[in-house]
Amino acid sequence: MTEVTVKRLSASAADFDVSLDRLLAWDDSVDHQVNESVRHILHEVRTRGDAALLELTERFDRVTAASVADLEISRARMAQAVAAIPAAQREALETAAARIRDYHERQKAPSWQYEEADGTVLGQKVTPLDRAGLYVPGGKAAYPSSVLMNAVPAKVAGVGEVVMVVPTPGGTVNELVLAAAGVAGVDRVFTIGGAQAVAALAYGTETVPRVDKIVGPGNIFVATAKREVFGTVGIDMIAGPSEILVICDGQTDPDWIAMDLFSQAEHDEQAQSILISPDADFLDRVEASIRKLLPTMERAEIIATSISDRAALIQVDDMAQAAEVSNRIAPEHLELSVADPEALLPAIRHAGAIFMGRYTAEALGDYCAGPNHVLPTSGTARFSSPLGVYDFQKRSSIIGFSAEGASEMGKVASVLARGEGLTAHARSAEYRIKDREAS
Amino acid sequence: MTEVTVKRLSASAADFDVSLDRLLAWDDSVDHQVNESVRHILHEVRTRGDAALLELTERFDRVTAASVADLEISRARMAQAVAAIPAAQREALETAAARIRDYHERQKAPSWQYEEADGTVLGQKVTPLDRAGLYVPGGKAAYPSSVLMNAVPAKVAGVGEVVMVVPTPGGTVNELVLAAAGVAGVDRVFTIGGAQAVAALAYGTETVPRVDKIVGPGNIFVATAKREVFGTVGIDMIAGPSEILVICDGQTDPDWIAMDLFSQAEHDEQAQSILISPDADFLDRVEASIRKLLPTMERAEIIATSISDRAALIQVDDMAQAAEVSNRIAPEHLELSVADPEALLPAIRHAGAIFMGRYTAEALGDYCAGPNHVLPTSGTARFSSPLGVYDFQKRSSIIGFSAEGASEMGKVASVLARGEGLTAHARSAEYRIKDREAS
Repeated sequence: MTEVTVKRLSASAADFDVSLDRLLAWDDSVDHQVNESVRHILHEVRTRGDAALLELTERFDRVTAASVADLEISRARMAQAVAAIPAAQREALETAAARIRDYHERQKAPSWQYEEADGTVLGQKVTPLDRAGLYVPGGKAAYPSSVLMNAVPAKVAGVGEVVMVVPTPGGTVNELVLAAAGVAGVDRVFTIGGAQAVAALAYGTETVPRVDKIVGPGNIFVATAKREVFGTVGIDMIAGPSEILVICDGQTDPDWIAMDLFSQAEHDEQAQSILISPDADFLDRVEASIRKLLPTMERAEIIATSISDRAALIQVDDMAQAAEVSNRIAPEHLELSVADPEALLPAIRHAGAIFMGRYTAEALGDYCAGPNHVLPTSGTARFSSPLGVYDFQKRSSIIGFSAEGASEMGKVASVLARGEGLTAHARSAEYRIKDREAS
Repeated sequence: MTEVTVKRLSASAADFDVSLDRLLAWDDSVDHQVNESVRHILHEVRTRGDAALLELTERFDRVTAASVADLEISRARMAQAVAAIPAAQREALETAAARIRDYHERQKAPSWQYEEADGTVLGQKVTPLDRAGLYVPGGKAAYPSSVLMNAVPAKVAGVGEVVMVVPTPGGTVNELVLAAAGVAGVDRVFTIGGAQAVAALAYGTETVPRVDKIVGPGNIFVATAKREVFGTVGIDMIAGPSEILVICDGQTDPDWIAMDLFSQAEHDEQAQSILISPDADFLDRVEASIRKLLPTMERAEIIATSISDRAALIQVDDMAQAAEVSNRIAPEHLELSVADPEALLPAIRHAGAIFMGRYTAEALGDYCAGPNHVLPTSGTARFSSPLGVYDFQKRSSIIGFSAEGASEMGKVASVLARGEGLTAHARSAEYRIKDREAS
């Protein structure tokens, strides 16, 4: 029988702040040996291109190829995977992709401009990235849903080319991942992985095209490589362990809540599952459900470790305090498992995704609700957003002065520029002032 | 007489790609000694708070204070600075702030949601950051315009509290910077700087409140500290040297163009100024203007070094090639100094800000046009945007399934979750399927 301990906290306890900080603490300190190794790999691929990529792929993935071109998977091969998987899976992928596409279409930001009375035009031009790179992990954490969640927003944004990389350790290709790439419309796929794949995307090689931004999850080598190439290319957020926070009024079936917590805990031992309720009896009932259901789970060991190490059931005075604790946590996933979630929503300031009401299990959002499942972790929802179309678009300011406008604004700019001691700025503006004295 | 050399390139030359890469090359490699020093400072402030902050401020800025509270500047003191500066400067600041506010109001993203036929609600909730930190350099690079450009978008976004830090080396306070803070509505100002100020904002001390995101320019210590705290808080882009690219049809006054190039070059020796034109004679005339005007400039030495080391006049075949070269450079500032800039605009894919037509000097955009002057440098306009209201807002996905919707989508999620081997996900979804078999 799998052992599990379930922590209890009370938001009214004198030491609650300290206890909560300890619960949330997450060591993201950099491993210097990983850093050194990643820097070496980046340097190799940057300077020796395809040759280094082939050597590293042989060393780390035990895949030998005569050329990087041999590591590319064609669109035809992706289509073949789509055709070959069971119909139920194909239909589920297509339904999910359609819903994700529909939701993300609404995130597209249009260009805009406006004209002032003197003919001056100001605006913002929105354009897609030329090319995006998508990292997809191989092996046990190979999630086709991740392919959809990363590739579809890029395609909706209008990215010219989406290049996916996925390692195939020992040559094992995940057909469901390939099918997802086919369904999502990924343009090119290379079976490379690790820091070497990130390097290839960031710098380009003879065969792998250089991209403008790299998104997608990966292990510590991939995350470290993304951090290193940040600036050369854009990157998405570096993700920490996944988390769920459930706020419940005590009226949801405790088995449902226990399973919702498990759905987070089964990801890995570091995943975090927290339940907040004003109802102490309900917390008891959920704990009983946890103990009852745990032995029936396929990933019982992982769940038990995750629950014991990182979960907590937190008792609060009322829903206002629940929202306050939630805002301090700024969770990746937040379930409002209450009778009237709309009433609670205005009090919620920080969360990656908010699941409204008892029927909205986080798992639905992970796959097919439509919104993205790539969400800010470790409290970064305080300042960042779900992956979206906006991550694949960028903006350019548009400034067009009429002769009249330039003359008037030239006077303002001149005063400010001279106040900063920047006389070339001032004189450049002054040239456009009508009837100016020669400068 | 100040010596200057002016490089010429031709886009049709066989070695143009190599020459252009060399021109644009910018060494942003990390200085390990700076890194070590910054990590030490971050650790000190994180663990010892105010006490460390006071010691470091004394050591680096030669400012002794009994408490960090003594280093805070009140709103009343800011108002005093607004009242004390010359009227022309006050009016220029206020005009600039009003225009910046007006432009940025249009960037505010609204929350949205929609309901599907079965009652399922999907949406996106947009909220401001609770608190933003604004770094403002002291000393020679103290730009009041930067205060406006960073603080106004934060206030427009609805950020709860904007906390500014600005070092006052030797105790010297820049009145124009304080006045700008007053005009922009900055909530709190601390006269601290360097990596220690970044640490105080990122981790909080007894007196300085922890913020959610840190923006604003700074020296190598500040930039390195921002890179290190990225993840704990959000940061804006790490800026490289400033750049201007001018595309001219040869019909603009060459003195104007020379001064526009100077307005970039005067920032510092690493700043980059590039002119592209299909008209070889015009390039000659601009070079003559550069030589003629240079001796009249206050910052002639800086300009001469910047122009000699990093500038180029590039001849192209036609405007299509000009746009192509520009897209490769992805410039921070792009002047389209041509008769019909609208005709050229669709060909421009990457630029921080685009200045349309002969009257729109970049200097006007730097101060008072309205759009932000914090722009992506070093080619990062390929994937990033000007600082904007969107940098101070974040999004939360909203997902609310009706009982009906949860039942239907539960089936899709179940298939995909089981395909990924995540059975707790599957069972969590399956609980919400109506008339399901017990799982």
